[in-house]
Amino acid sequence: MNILVINCGSSSLKFQLIDSESEKLIAKGLCERIAIEGSRLVYTPAGGEKQITEAPMRDHKEAVSLVLKALTDEKTGVVKSLDEIGAVGHRLVHGGEHFSKATLITEEVKKAIQDCCELAPLHNPANLIGIEACEALMPGTPMVGVFDTAFHQTMPEEAYMYAIPYRYYQDYKIRRYGFHGTSHAYVSKRAAAVLGQPVESLKTIVCHLGNGASVSAVKYGKCIDTSMGLTPLEGLVMGTRSGDIDPAIIEFIAHKEGKSIDEIMNILNKESGVYGLSNGFSSDFRDLEDAYLEGNEDAARALKAFSQRVIKYIGAYVAEMDGADAICFTAGLGENSPIIRDMVCASLSYLGITLDEEANHKRGEEIIISRPGSGTKVLVIPTNEELAIARETAEIVKS
Amino acid sequence: MNILVINCGSSSLKFQLIDSESEKLIAKGLCERIAIEGSRLVYTPAGGEKQITEAPMRDHKEAVSLVLKALTDEKTGVVKSLDEIGAVGHRLVHGGEHFSKATLITEEVKKAIQDCCELAPLHNPANLIGIEACEALMPGTPMVGVFDTAFHQTMPEEAYMYAIPYRYYQDYKIRRYGFHGTSHAYVSKRAAAVLGQPVESLKTIVCHLGNGASVSAVKYGKCIDTSMGLTPLEGLVMGTRSGDIDPAIIEFIAHKEGKSIDEIMNILNKESGVYGLSNGFSSDFRDLEDAYLEGNEDAARALKAFSQRVIKYIGAYVAEMDGADAICFTAGLGENSPIIRDMVCASLSYLGITLDEEANHKRGEEIIISRPGSGTKVLVIPTNEELAIARETAEIVKS
Repeated sequence: MNILVINCGSSSLKFQLIDSESEKLIAKGLCERIAIEGSRLVYTPAGGEKQITEAPMRDHKEAVSLVLKALTDEKTGVVKSLDEIGAVGHRLVHGGEHFSKATLITEEVKKAIQDCCELAPLHNPANLIGIEACEALMPGTPMVGVFDTAFHQTMPEEAYMYAIPYRYYQDYKIRRYGFHGTSHAYVSKRAAAVLGQPVESLKTIVCHLGNGASVSAVKYGKCIDTSMGLTPLEGLVMGTRSGDIDPAIIEFIAHKEGKSIDEIMNILNKESGVYGLSNGFSSDFRDLEDAYLEGNEDAARALKAFSQRVIKYIGAYVAEMDGADAICFTAGLGENSPIIRDMVCASLSYLGITLDEEANHKRGEEIIISRPGSGTKVLVIPTNEELAIARETAEIVKS
Repeated sequence: MNILVINCGSSSLKFQLIDSESEKLIAKGLCERIAIEGSRLVYTPAGGEKQITEAPMRDHKEAVSLVLKALTDEKTGVVKSLDEIGAVGHRLVHGGEHFSKATLITEEVKKAIQDCCELAPLHNPANLIGIEACEALMPGTPMVGVFDTAFHQTMPEEAYMYAIPYRYYQDYKIRRYGFHGTSHAYVSKRAAAVLGQPVESLKTIVCHLGNGASVSAVKYGKCIDTSMGLTPLEGLVMGTRSGDIDPAIIEFIAHKEGKSIDEIMNILNKESGVYGLSNGFSSDFRDLEDAYLEGNEDAARALKAFSQRVIKYIGAYVAEMDGADAICFTAGLGENSPIIRDMVCASLSYLGITLDEEANHKRGEEIIISRPGSGTKVLVIPTNEELAIARETAEIVKS
């Protein structure tokens, strides 16, 4: 079955068409600047050339319409008609406590997604718009929602509760949710496959390190803790996000500079992370690595602090699971930065880890990068959230 | 030499008189409700009976005056005159980046303590008042400042820097400072003595668990990380303090309830921690333990979350130090709660730890509570901040 995977942002829409049997990519692309001047569609059929179409898109419905037109186009299309698309899988950011797995989208489900809008005010409304645009243009085609938070719903209470007045959980559902769940689930399963062991027998730590970054502890196939919290601000140092800080810093800056909470939250989300630590040098890890290798102190400070936080979370999750069989690196930085993997693993010899330097420098494949005999194995597993969404969608539709 | 140790709060003053040669306590006590109606002095000479004197104390100088009078009183005093007090050691909360060890108090030092007032607005002003009261009443007696932050000044940059714009460090010195330093230093040294090894050869984790609680990683005698940060709010779950939370929770509550930053900080400091988690059941760990043993769910939630955070920090610090030789429990809860030690150590068998249940139930002594052969040793070390302050004071005065 061909599955159209949709990832809808406030002014963008990414898509992939995937054959769920062969798991091959058929086409992919994105719509940029939806409802903004200069909108365009970038479309690439598998094995074909990238096509860029400048076209006005007044809303997400017009964007979806253009995507469907490109997929069914006589010349460059990949399917003859929309009948060849069996289902649509939507990447959804926040499912709150409602969803612990992917689900067929019904009116009731849409209501629940709506209920979670205040937990993800930037993402859930856009996700809903994408669902409704697809429903309007593909009536009768089943839609499935795959939530970023779902995989983390197995966390025990002691991991998801904050030590704040309990009424905040009862009244507003303030708790740790975690994000990147589709990636953490996919990578922990792939790691088990690469190690040739059932995921139910493994204690795995997944380090999803990209511009947004999170770590999760996956014990016997279930997430038991993760570093992002109520929002994607908590946890690791990220490109421009602070991650963990003393909450009292917000008060301190507010008093010092007469700033509002919203202004400070904006600073913590957009001017912090390695960008802030490097004194504004860059939020791009490639820039920082190059500068670090040339002896730049701002870059060194940022990368060392970044790695130190990864080390701390790995250590914390090893303790929470009372041991770890595997540590996986994934996402842009996790997959492509031997330097960061090296900085992190240098502190993990207590787990019996030594890196295979040659393997650590390979790119683009699922690979064990620890030396044979390492107590805890270290792997690089390229993530593939779209494929994971297509799989989950196909499963729901078939059942 | 007899050392008077002073710990001055905004309306209280605790003191101990200690003979720095024999390290014996000569007398101790406290002044309560200074400058408030109903003030009183509680005074206990070693081996004698506790005496309570109701007496007006309009300010800290009057309180110090009453303390000195009690110490030199003909009937119940312990010294003949103030000449027998060789020095005063002041417990000071915040030394900022100025002080990495105890120091003789001069005008310049007082100025530096004053500079740190905005980092510890509740504590440093009271500490300064205590110094000045003693100076006025004991002219010529050397005064030494022992800072709660000093021991943590050896942390490397990656541990003390937050991932926020670098200017906040440059302009306002926003960074991790850590607290309870005198206790962490004392306990890590005592642990080395109990294990019969030099502190310079050990990787030690100190869990100072009281109503305020912090963990520190002490590598070869130097602190390399600690859980409290810019303020004592960060880190572990405490009696009424939240410890680590997603910073975005502050914004969320502010918008939901129309509260100011100051109001929310007050909630995070005074209505959170195990008190908040247990839905207001209690901030007292003894109450919570009793209720937990009787099956109370609110108490169970609070204690499990508390222990989980201790486990996470221990794990994080094991990773940061790439292993640990010893884990020490100290302070009210750390010294007196076999339940909490058991809950924490149950998750640490990956370090080769098994508890000696009999030793774990002993009280009041320095003791190894892990079984012989445990990879990482677990110890209970009663802390003694006053003795540590007396030692440091004597050392400064003699040199």
